[in-house]
Amino acid sequence: MSVMNAQIKLVRRPKPGLITPDCFARVDAAPPTPGPGEFRVRVQYVSLDPAMRGWVNDARSYVPPVGIGEVMRAYAVGIVDASEHPGFKVGEAVQGLFGVQQYAISKGQRVVKVDPAIAPLPRWIGGLGMPGWTAYFGLLDVGQPAAGETVVISAASGAVGSIVGQIARIKGCRAVGIAGGPEKCRAVRETLGFDDCVDYKADGLADRLKAACPKGIDVYFENVGGEILDTVLPLMNTFGRIPVCGLISAYNATSVPEGPKNLRAVLTQRLRMQGLIVFDWAERIPEAVEVLGRWYKEGRLVIREDVRTGGVDKFVETLNLLYTGGNNGKLVLEVGA
Amino acid sequence: MSVMNAQIKLVRRPKPGLITPDCFARVDAAPPTPGPGEFRVRVQYVSLDPAMRGWVNDARSYVPPVGIGEVMRAYAVGIVDASEHPGFKVGEAVQGLFGVQQYAISKGQRVVKVDPAIAPLPRWIGGLGMPGWTAYFGLLDVGQPAAGETVVISAASGAVGSIVGQIARIKGCRAVGIAGGPEKCRAVRETLGFDDCVDYKADGLADRLKAACPKGIDVYFENVGGEILDTVLPLMNTFGRIPVCGLISAYNATSVPEGPKNLRAVLTQRLRMQGLIVFDWAERIPEAVEVLGRWYKEGRLVIREDVRTGGVDKFVETLNLLYTGGNNGKLVLEVGA
Repeated sequence: MSVMNAQIKLVRRPKPGLITPDCFARVDAAPPTPGPGEFRVRVQYVSLDPAMRGWVNDARSYVPPVGIGEVMRAYAVGIVDASEHPGFKVGEAVQGLFGVQQYAISKGQRVVKVDPAIAPLPRWIGGLGMPGWTAYFGLLDVGQPAAGETVVISAASGAVGSIVGQIARIKGCRAVGIAGGPEKCRAVRETLGFDDCVDYKADGLADRLKAACPKGIDVYFENVGGEILDTVLPLMNTFGRIPVCGLISAYNATSVPEGPKNLRAVLTQRLRMQGLIVFDWAERIPEAVEVLGRWYKEGRLVIREDVRTGGVDKFVETLNLLYTGGNNGKLVLEVGA
Repeated sequence: MSVMNAQIKLVRRPKPGLITPDCFARVDAAPPTPGPGEFRVRVQYVSLDPAMRGWVNDARSYVPPVGIGEVMRAYAVGIVDASEHPGFKVGEAVQGLFGVQQYAISKGQRVVKVDPAIAPLPRWIGGLGMPGWTAYFGLLDVGQPAAGETVVISAASGAVGSIVGQIARIKGCRAVGIAGGPEKCRAVRETLGFDDCVDYKADGLADRLKAACPKGIDVYFENVGGEILDTVLPLMNTFGRIPVCGLISAYNATSVPEGPKNLRAVLTQRLRMQGLIVFDWAERIPEAVEVLGRWYKEGRLVIREDVRTGGVDKFVETLNLLYTGGNNGKLVLEVGA
């Protein structure tokens, strides 16, 4: 009765639209053995991220696509259970791009040690992990909010958006979320403490957003694109900034999506719209880990995960919840052997 | 037989589409007399600028719209012919927002003295005037090109675009224009000295632009928008910059124009798209005047005007040439009394 390593591998590229389960196959292999300078991670939780939809397309992007036959790329968190690496000891908790599998080999590149005494493991691939770092650098470095300004966040109840609004408030800004449905909006206001949150699924979004932002919008943290971007653009103040972190509305489009009709606001209001990928801040990840961890310990950051069970077999089904709005907070899949 | 001041006033707002002549009326009034702290300009040339289409719309923009009954806003150049202002003497040549009229009163705000010995008057509302300043700050401050990078310019034969490409070359960049028709493209290459120029009216723009930019595009100076922006976006290099100076393709749209379908490139390539209006550099205009004037004297800037005659009555007809591609170089209307 040997232990096996259940892995999810990409076997064909998805067609436009939601990923179908036949694009992936489960493979059970013997757990790998670390060589010199390597260690093995027993993966416990895998992060489900909107960007995954792009990683499996054979298109130019910020990282090469996942190859056919390769384990699906994913951030994950787990425990070192074998090590030939001087910097990582058996029993240490680590976070990194370990993939959708139960055992991963690593040389330590881009791996972050995490402290389970500060927060439970799933949180380190959520608000204290990559989504939190994205929120931190995207809002502060790209959005550059000043105290007293208004920051609007789309997908406000999502993994990144939920942190962006809380950082905005820590920095003295008015934080206004956009989310889908009254329940999510209530949670954004009451649990996450945003100043306001408007429901994009209800009528009259433009008017309600305008009412929620009486001084206009200085920073729009974009996770969604499409019609929501078009609604926000005319409400932007002069010299406003739009960090573009995601455009989830288009990721599963089956036809070429329309672009923003109100792009003219970029010119007339002299807006700065700027794409961001957290990998570009690789050198400064320790800063984000330290600051977010401190805010969290001080009780200034509320972080929620939506942890799903069922192991690697549930990968596609769970991932697709992101694109249909079926999750509530950072989506995580338990895969522990 | 007294001298009169022929003025063009806005009498009704245009409908979407090209401006029709009935939106303006010619009024002949007695030339105004300067009060204390004022001077009078005998206007000789009026600048026709794409932005004028926006100035007559009753919509939120970077300046209030021209009011009904007001003289049409315009940059112009002329000679001081009466002065109660200590800083401006009769006989001096000046450039400013004097409007579409033959005589204007000014307090000197935002007025720039120009030297007819360096260049003839029309050039001071062209490559050495507002379009030149726009090119200078837009490319250098917003576009931030580095030597060796590739700069692509739409409306490359236009007032702003023609200067942008030449500054790019002065800064050691490869300058590639986009213009309409083989004749304009030849002029951009041969007269203005761009490294290359592609014709957007011919088939296969994407392939020809790609061939003209073998190292990709680092800076796209945007004057046009629409399909051309969509063609450029996928060719942008990582961390590319897109100064948005104009979106002329949409100014006369009779239906809401479609936005860029390829906005995803902003995210994946981490592009920075930023609107610019030259008014924001008001404090630094003297720098642009000095540097552009020096380059011009050194023979490093080729500046062409397309000077039309016929006086203020030709205002609408001449302006509309901009939107139909009928001009060749900076469009100027002679209005001298």
